[in-house]
Amino acid sequence: MHVGRTLRLNEARLLQQIRLLGEIGTDTVNGGRTRIALTDAEKAGRDQLLAWMQELELDVRIDRIGNIFGTLHTEGEADEQAPLMIGSHIDTVTNAGAFDGCYGVLAGLAVARAYREAGMVPDRPLTVAAFTNEEGVRYQPDMMGSLVYAGGLGLDEALSTIGTDGTRLGDELRRIGYAGDLEPGSIVPHEYLELHIEQGPILEAEDTLIGVVENLQGISWQKIRVTGKANHAGTTPTALRHDAGYVAGAVIAELREIARDSGGTTLATVGSMSLEPNVINVIARQASFTVDLRDPDEAELSAAENRLNQFLIAIAEEEGVEVSCERLVRFQPVTFDPGLADEIEASAKRKGLSYRRMTSGAGHDAQMIARIAPAAMIFVPSRGGISHNPLEHTNDDQLLKGAEVLLDVVLHRLIRT
Amino acid sequence: MHVGRTLRLNEARLLQQIRLLGEIGTDTVNGGRTRIALTDAEKAGRDQLLAWMQELELDVRIDRIGNIFGTLHTEGEADEQAPLMIGSHIDTVTNAGAFDGCYGVLAGLAVARAYREAGMVPDRPLTVAAFTNEEGVRYQPDMMGSLVYAGGLGLDEALSTIGTDGTRLGDELRRIGYAGDLEPGSIVPHEYLELHIEQGPILEAEDTLIGVVENLQGISWQKIRVTGKANHAGTTPTALRHDAGYVAGAVIAELREIARDSGGTTLATVGSMSLEPNVINVIARQASFTVDLRDPDEAELSAAENRLNQFLIAIAEEEGVEVSCERLVRFQPVTFDPGLADEIEASAKRKGLSYRRMTSGAGHDAQMIARIAPAAMIFVPSRGGISHNPLEHTNDDQLLKGAEVLLDVVLHRLIRT
Repeated sequence: MHVGRTLRLNEARLLQQIRLLGEIGTDTVNGGRTRIALTDAEKAGRDQLLAWMQELELDVRIDRIGNIFGTLHTEGEADEQAPLMIGSHIDTVTNAGAFDGCYGVLAGLAVARAYREAGMVPDRPLTVAAFTNEEGVRYQPDMMGSLVYAGGLGLDEALSTIGTDGTRLGDELRRIGYAGDLEPGSIVPHEYLELHIEQGPILEAEDTLIGVVENLQGISWQKIRVTGKANHAGTTPTALRHDAGYVAGAVIAELREIARDSGGTTLATVGSMSLEPNVINVIARQASFTVDLRDPDEAELSAAENRLNQFLIAIAEEEGVEVSCERLVRFQPVTFDPGLADEIEASAKRKGLSYRRMTSGAGHDAQMIARIAPAAMIFVPSRGGISHNPLEHTNDDQLLKGAEVLLDVVLHRLIRT
Repeated sequence: MHVGRTLRLNEARLLQQIRLLGEIGTDTVNGGRTRIALTDAEKAGRDQLLAWMQELELDVRIDRIGNIFGTLHTEGEADEQAPLMIGSHIDTVTNAGAFDGCYGVLAGLAVARAYREAGMVPDRPLTVAAFTNEEGVRYQPDMMGSLVYAGGLGLDEALSTIGTDGTRLGDELRRIGYAGDLEPGSIVPHEYLELHIEQGPILEAEDTLIGVVENLQGISWQKIRVTGKANHAGTTPTALRHDAGYVAGAVIAELREIARDSGGTTLATVGSMSLEPNVINVIARQASFTVDLRDPDEAELSAAENRLNQFLIAIAEEEGVEVSCERLVRFQPVTFDPGLADEIEASAKRKGLSYRRMTSGAGHDAQMIARIAPAAMIFVPSRGGISHNPLEHTNDDQLLKGAEVLLDVVLHRLIRT
């Protein structure tokens, strides 16, 4: 049943679908598009995806957390095997680019289309998945659909999530008509592939086309609150200050040291900060800020967390302030399936495309599905490393080369089963 | 005409007036009182002050910037002399204490009352002044009324100031009925005294009652804006970041070093900060923050500014960010009149009160009037160093001792003229 090199990507259709999906939810004010999970705009995106799946005569199923699956069946007993799954997401952040997530889902459709246009079927079922709420803008945590699917978060708990706008996730899912009946996790894939833009600068900086993603960083998110004492900036001697703003600055400086001392593997970011009362001539009574720590190695990530914690204890003592930490997110690093990564590398080699092994810095649905099936990812370059921004961009040629590698990997995985 | 020790402070009346003025504009929500310059609440405070001045039969004049003067005249030719002026302000910050400014104005009334109750007049006119908009909450700069009075800011410019609420100062002054006809600066005082709470922790920490304020720190306020590049916190290697949040933290840490290296004279505060886009997993594109630098010595203050500037140039280069600085306020240090300071010290000694020479960390109207007349200040302790806060507190006994020193200094200055 395998068809070798007679299967071809319909390049024009793939690029057209990326463009069309990117036109749903466009922002007239700040540019880009906004299809936050389970909003009307995202429903419109889902409706479009379903129409395209039905056009390819895929068997469409929706599960109880709203994940969408479109399966290209095969014949006879072979169809009872677990499917090869290609997935990602179509929800977006605010003022997003057109590629994050959507590219992977639509490339999955392009692989199914290659079979359809050749009049052939794969050796085992091929399922294209779009997972609910990968971005986590309105409902936390992010990567929720794939997390529930992999059993990492209870369905009822997920459905009960209250959003930043006060809505309940389950209600919104029902409202937009995407509360399906399939039990999450009931289709365990044989293997899982996700094609994605890098969302970072490494491939572009090294002029490399294909990222063979062999692992994914662990992520530690904390919210830190420093409580000192508000006082007059002109009359309070330095030695008598309990300056929450100073402590926040010292923590930021220490985090850079932690990143530097790691030799480059640990990333540390303070992206959000607020001071109270936030007045020019008043020593800050309180500083609240977030810390985003990442490392591909669990021991290194834990060491960074511990070093930060020790620093906080010491500076709280020195400056006479109270420090509290709230853990927001903690995902251990994920090692992807070595066999699948080797397959991606072999495909890039066969096609004469430049490639490198790399770590994913961002979180992806693949890290959740990796809990229940062999998984790996393929990256293509992001111009300027920019993502989550209307300026997010990947050239057509790069998008098509990435999809060719995906198709090639699928063909090679299926031939051997 | 001088009356020596027969003049006595009406202690009960002074404490009562402090309490009564503190009840005007009380905040039911966050405590304290709010009488921001030229609001209805501040008009009510002004009306009360005028009533009390008239009760003492002072000659009340209001100038074109709204400064209020109540003069206790003397007799004959002596009344043509320049007055001894006692001043401060009655406007407040939001949720203020009852003492900042009001204490000095009402103690001035208490000195005038001592003459009235003894049936005597001073050797030269005695003027009690309440200057407009010392706090600068709604209209910048602060200390505006005394600055205009001393010729440091043009009257028309001051009247044209647009407030944080979009109002024009001159319109609000007219609306509340305090646009007077006296030309600012037309009464140049012979000498100027200001009694004030310390608003800092030094007197309390040293268990000292009277601060002999011999100078006032220079103040440098800047708004600094760091523009880097927003990017994904998980995918952007440390070496490729242009992290405005990190630069802000590094500046805060450097400012502490500047303060430390000064041996304690330089104070540095970052009280206000905002990051954009202010998201946990996005490297900050922009950080805006204020820097408050103070030192009693102009050379030291300039050196601190220069060191900060050098640091900003270096870190902008290292991190690939742009840094812009906007100067908001710059006042040179002020040295008060040594003769007046000696007089205050002599008075504390005579009365057996503990005292120390000190620097004012905060700005005060006295620093403006010092441009046109010999001036000095008397401080009393602030509990916990707290001010600009409903918790601002000074004991009755401390308030009265401070007013006694003021009265004593006035009597000694007048006897010698």
